[in-house]
Amino acid sequence: MGLNHTPFRIGRGQSGSRNLITDVPGVTVGQVTIKNLPNACTGVTAILPHRGDLFHDKVMAAACVFNGYGKTMGLVQVEELGTIESPILLTNTLSVGTAATACIKYMMEKNPDIGREAGTVNPLVGECNDGSLNDIRALHVTEAQVAEALACCAEDFSEGAVGAGTGMCCLGFKGGIGSASRLVTLDGHMYTVGALVLSNFGERGRLTVDGRPLGREILEKLQEKQNLNQQDKGSIIMVIATDIPLTERQLKRVARRAGVGLSRTGSFMGNGSGDIAIAFSTANRVPHDSPSALLHFSAISDGYIDPVFDMTAEAVEEAIISSLWHAETTEGRDGRVAVGLKDAMTEAGLL
Amino acid sequence: MGLNHTPFRIGRGQSGSRNLITDVPGVTVGQVTIKNLPNACTGVTAILPHRGDLFHDKVMAAACVFNGYGKTMGLVQVEELGTIESPILLTNTLSVGTAATACIKYMMEKNPDIGREAGTVNPLVGECNDGSLNDIRALHVTEAQVAEALACCAEDFSEGAVGAGTGMCCLGFKGGIGSASRLVTLDGHMYTVGALVLSNFGERGRLTVDGRPLGREILEKLQEKQNLNQQDKGSIIMVIATDIPLTERQLKRVARRAGVGLSRTGSFMGNGSGDIAIAFSTANRVPHDSPSALLHFSAISDGYIDPVFDMTAEAVEEAIISSLWHAETTEGRDGRVAVGLKDAMTEAGLL
Amino acid sequence: MGLNHTPFRIGRGQSGSRNLITDVPGVTVGQVTIKNLPNACTGVTAILPHRGDLFHDKVMAAACVFNGYGKTMGLVQVEELGTIESPILLTNTLSVGTAATACIKYMMEKNPDIGREAGTVNPLVGECNDGSLNDIRALHVTEAQVAEALACCAEDFSEGAVGAGTGMCCLGFKGGIGSASRLVTLDGHMYTVGALVLSNFGERGRLTVDGRPLGREILEKLQEKQNLNQQDKGSIIMVIATDIPLTERQLKRVARRAGVGLSRTGSFMGNGSGDIAIAFSTANRVPHDSPSALLHFSAISDGYIDPVFDMTAEAVEEAIISSLWHAETTEGRDGRVAVGLKDAMTEAGLL
Amino acid sequence: MGLNHTPFRIGRGQSGSRNLITDVPGVTVGQVTIKNLPNACTGVTAILPHRGDLFHDKVMAAACVFNGYGKTMGLVQVEELGTIESPILLTNTLSVGTAATACIKYMMEKNPDIGREAGTVNPLVGECNDGSLNDIRALHVTEAQVAEALACCAEDFSEGAVGAGTGMCCLGFKGGIGSASRLVTLDGHMYTVGALVLSNFGERGRLTVDGRPLGREILEKLQEKQNLNQQDKGSIIMVIATDIPLTERQLKRVARRAGVGLSRTGSFMGNGSGDIAIAFSTANRVPHDSPSALLHFSAISDGYIDPVFDMTAEAVEEAIISSLWHAETTEGRDGRVAVGLKDAMTEAGLL
Repeated sequence: MGLNHTPFRIGRGQSGSRNLITDVPGVTVGQVTIKNLPNACTGVTAILPHRGDLFHDKVMAAACVFNGYGKTMGLVQVEELGTIESPILLTNTLSVGTAATACIKYMMEKNPDIGREAGTVNPLVGECNDGSLNDIRALHVTEAQVAEALACCAEDFSEGAVGAGTGMCCLGFKGGIGSASRLVTLDGHMYTVGALVLSNFGERGRLTVDGRPLGREILEKLQEKQNLNQQDKGSIIMVIATDIPLTERQLKRVARRAGVGLSRTGSFMGNGSGDIAIAFSTANRVPHDSPSALLHFSAISDGYIDPVFDMTAEAVEEAIISSLWHAETTEGRDGRVAVGLKDAMTEAGLL
Repeated sequence: MGLNHTPFRIGRGQSGSRNLITDVPGVTVGQVTIKNLPNACTGVTAILPHRGDLFHDKVMAAACVFNGYGKTMGLVQVEELGTIESPILLTNTLSVGTAATACIKYMMEKNPDIGREAGTVNPLVGECNDGSLNDIRALHVTEAQVAEALACCAEDFSEGAVGAGTGMCCLGFKGGIGSASRLVTLDGHMYTVGALVLSNFGERGRLTVDGRPLGREILEKLQEKQNLNQQDKGSIIMVIATDIPLTERQLKRVARRAGVGLSRTGSFMGNGSGDIAIAFSTANRVPHDSPSALLHFSAISDGYIDPVFDMTAEAVEEAIISSLWHAETTEGRDGRVAVGLKDAMTEAGLL
Repeated sequence: MGLNHTPFRIGRGQSGSRNLITDVPGVTVGQVTIKNLPNACTGVTAILPHRGDLFHDKVMAAACVFNGYGKTMGLVQVEELGTIESPILLTNTLSVGTAATACIKYMMEKNPDIGREAGTVNPLVGECNDGSLNDIRALHVTEAQVAEALACCAEDFSEGAVGAGTGMCCLGFKGGIGSASRLVTLDGHMYTVGALVLSNFGERGRLTVDGRPLGREILEKLQEKQNLNQQDKGSIIMVIATDIPLTERQLKRVARRAGVGLSRTGSFMGNGSGDIAIAFSTANRVPHDSPSALLHFSAISDGYIDPVFDMTAEAVEEAIISSLWHAETTEGRDGRVAVGLKDAMTEAGLL
Repeated sequence: MGLNHTPFRIGRGQSGSRNLITDVPGVTVGQVTIKNLPNACTGVTAILPHRGDLFHDKVMAAACVFNGYGKTMGLVQVEELGTIESPILLTNTLSVGTAATACIKYMMEKNPDIGREAGTVNPLVGECNDGSLNDIRALHVTEAQVAEALACCAEDFSEGAVGAGTGMCCLGFKGGIGSASRLVTLDGHMYTVGALVLSNFGERGRLTVDGRPLGREILEKLQEKQNLNQQDKGSIIMVIATDIPLTERQLKRVARRAGVGLSRTGSFMGNGSGDIAIAFSTANRVPHDSPSALLHFSAISDGYIDPVFDMTAEAVEEAIISSLWHAETTEGRDGRVAVGLKDAMTEAGLL
């Protein structure tokens, strides 16, 4: 069992070699953790859908908003055109503008035609509120740090209290970045569904791991434990990548299944939560400019999509659990502490 | 100028040979006009997307609800799966159930696997309220009449006060069935966009024909004229067919442009109106059962879609005007009369 | 523990006195079970939102489509106007037209202004495909039987293989009608959230009861058991009623939480499923005709809505489990048998 | 006829005293025009829904996306919660991030609880691409200029090539900021519907003024005229304010009628356009924190909403025409010129 694995068995599917979203060929992730300044406990996570020219060679995509108490930017165009044409950036809520501007600069540098003959570019930025551990009002994230996250995208990346997940809390524990993958075989060909989540939702005591009420178990043993995140505030951004040929419509259906995985972990999609899923397929590319009117696509028949739905729900579920497992106990602003799941389980005698 | 043409020039596009939705190859229309019983002034219009097996060889489709004070049935599945798998039926509001049941029987007769191994079928039924001329409470439409409309589908069909349009009123005049088509050239290939509307919306005095305030002109000349349809109640169903390869997402965009054509004719999409557009492409077929997971589609690049949008708006605009032009003055229930546009223009000295 | 209770403890909330949707004051349910003809194994379930004039005194409402491979009728107007103005009917997929027509007749009889000065009425009919046990092609349901279900609405009703649930299958077992309720206290006032489901979804082996993988446990003990419903085909309709003052927007949020309860029971919202939730509040009434323009409403602040979300998810989860618990082993068409959960657990030595 | 009026009569309604969105009591507008740097031709327009504490005293709101090739930020939360809790900012496409960050700082300064106990704030930023006249790649807009626009909000403001409209082009002419208002009487009380648009859409030759094909007329007289904006690229943001008590659902219906006004002016909602309407009511306020669960609202009955729809369509139509009328001929980057409508009409001998 490698670094990216947890002691928990989630579902029935088989994971890819890394058990990360980067098991989907071409997908890379880069992160910057920001803890250098007093009361800074935040960061940036970047996902590149592929290694080529994202703007001129877009990936088909869709999103699903389960609960829209959130500030994710870029979904209007994803919905209309069914494509992503930029990196996907994750950061804290009040830094979305900074991330968007940094993303625009990154895209303009790579594409001199943006803002000229090619029109503009649509930055896609998801967020959660890390204000319980991070002095979010200080707007710690800089454009340079966003650029750094974009520059360091690779197949290997860490989970837990890193990047955009640095200051997040989830289900009463330290949350953050989690990832998992699942394999799906169609027509004898093996494909991958990968998920990456930024977890920041949920009431303490609700954590459920493959049906086991682990949050309740821990709470019963550690009743006196003070807790930063008692209400179901916060959010979760769930990014799903796959190399299965899917249309925008099908990707929206896939995105909707992220909610199944989320529901299984103990969320009831609380009022204060921005619960959003974004799904893309690297198999269907859409050119920014096409020399001829007609384009050709492949997509699976909807009659074959159930394993994709099933493995999406599992990958998201496992990515959430993985974000908790990998997130170490973290001290944030004003001495506030969020306890990591591993530490809590140890203290409760459950490990 | 043939029977299907009006004296009005709408827009700048070129119409197909019939200037009807049936200019789209394979599309046929059948209608039954019901005036045989006292106070009956209603009917059924059926549209077959193609002449083959609609259930096993579905057409890609999408819908747009501009104002949902309507009872159209079947849109949930069209939205989810992006296909139409049955005829499209139009009738009066309270006969939707009858039309649905007749449609199900029609589809079951053609497909013995429906309700067995193939699952069920999704009837698609649009409606407007013809209660001002028709005794709609009497539920005059029978399943046999729906079957009759389905059985007589052909490339030629009448417009005006026929079929589902028999008792409809629009913009203060007699409304009903109207149709038009427009040609679009892409990659040197000529395609067709066709529209068929069931018009039953709008306040008297609002009729606008290619910018000309014809309703106001007529009203000024014929001030004393009593009128059945003073408020913007009623509805409009707009069906758009094309042989251009378009995805469900693109067809939804096309459906949305029906609202542009509608807006130009004098509608402000009144509260009491069910204003709904349904668009399908005969070029992209989706099998009910696929032997392999992977399917292949063509679709135009969105960068080439503007002429499709433009001609959709025009075809819908002209179909509405055509429905008014062809609808003769009609006497309905309890001696109520809706004046045809031709008669009104003649009386006003405008023809 | 009364008839409507199961041996399973779901969640943490407190149920109302009946643990049925009818714990919401004024809500009544009526059912007709149709097994009188050869291969008939179907029925009708009717829900009246209140005992008054449903058409002139509408309830605020909203719906959420989780997966739209379904034929539910009436949602277009619910979405636009935010109200339900008729009973909610549930039946088999191919009988939606019949149920709609019967509903229209029922409403016309009570309201002579329908189809005249008051406009038309919007029948709301949900469905699942009971074709595995019922000869659904025979269209067994009659308008008279729908009327009968409407006529017998009362606070007490049965769960399991009754009414619209007669022929449904769920998670490899006999499914059907299930119901549950939860209490919510706001501003010191006790309110009720009630759920009624028509369960017909899910793969065998997936049943999860409050986290316990009961389906897997049973399957392991009874491996050779043949099963009618192996794939996640079928559907679920989830109706949520409450007396909490909520707006249409809030009711849509509530409807969305039905998916949380559904996800917990073992569904991944399979491709072939029509998974739809409808929520209404009896506290906010909307008149069909208002003598003055201004109306006055109450609604809770969204900051207080979390317990409503939480209890909705629980009530739906428990209603699904209850539908399985109460559904007896049933023989349907051509000798096909769906095993009841109680019998399966007994055979597996788990009861 | 004051400064804000045009020589064109649009529709039949009566405008408010200023014929501006600020006729709605409490609404103010502030603008900064940025032409100080080489090739800078851009700006910012800010709308304050009321003069109080926008965050703690939110206005009910909704949006409608007609065509989503746009980067408007903030709509996810508007859709979920039905409120606006910040100023509405308009600027060029690539400056949305800058505007968002400036808005966050503005809101944090006024509300020390943002990012702490009160959660985060949702900036609402609309945009159009002014890249034909403005060196949009230079990201000319600064946070300080956004703050300046916010600081100078007042009831009087200019239309045309000012603020966010400085570099916009529309229907082949210079576009920009336009505004209009209409009065609506309900229950004997006079209310106002106001519209403000940022116009940047449409093909040359398509301009239609109350039915008159003015664009075609001008084009015929000035055939040789070169033109910057030949295709229907660009966008339009349409903001509608009213003091009529309307719910979020009703405001969404109102927002949808902006598309009627837009359609009448010559748009067919081209592929490259971000056509978005945002509507809010100052009459229904939603507190950020409520001491008790229950809130009370007023809203008009939908049966009285037709004049609101009608006047919304008219106000938007007139605001678009007004944006063209007031926009002077402008020289932008690299000597590019967009001709103002007044100059074009003069040159064509139509004034």
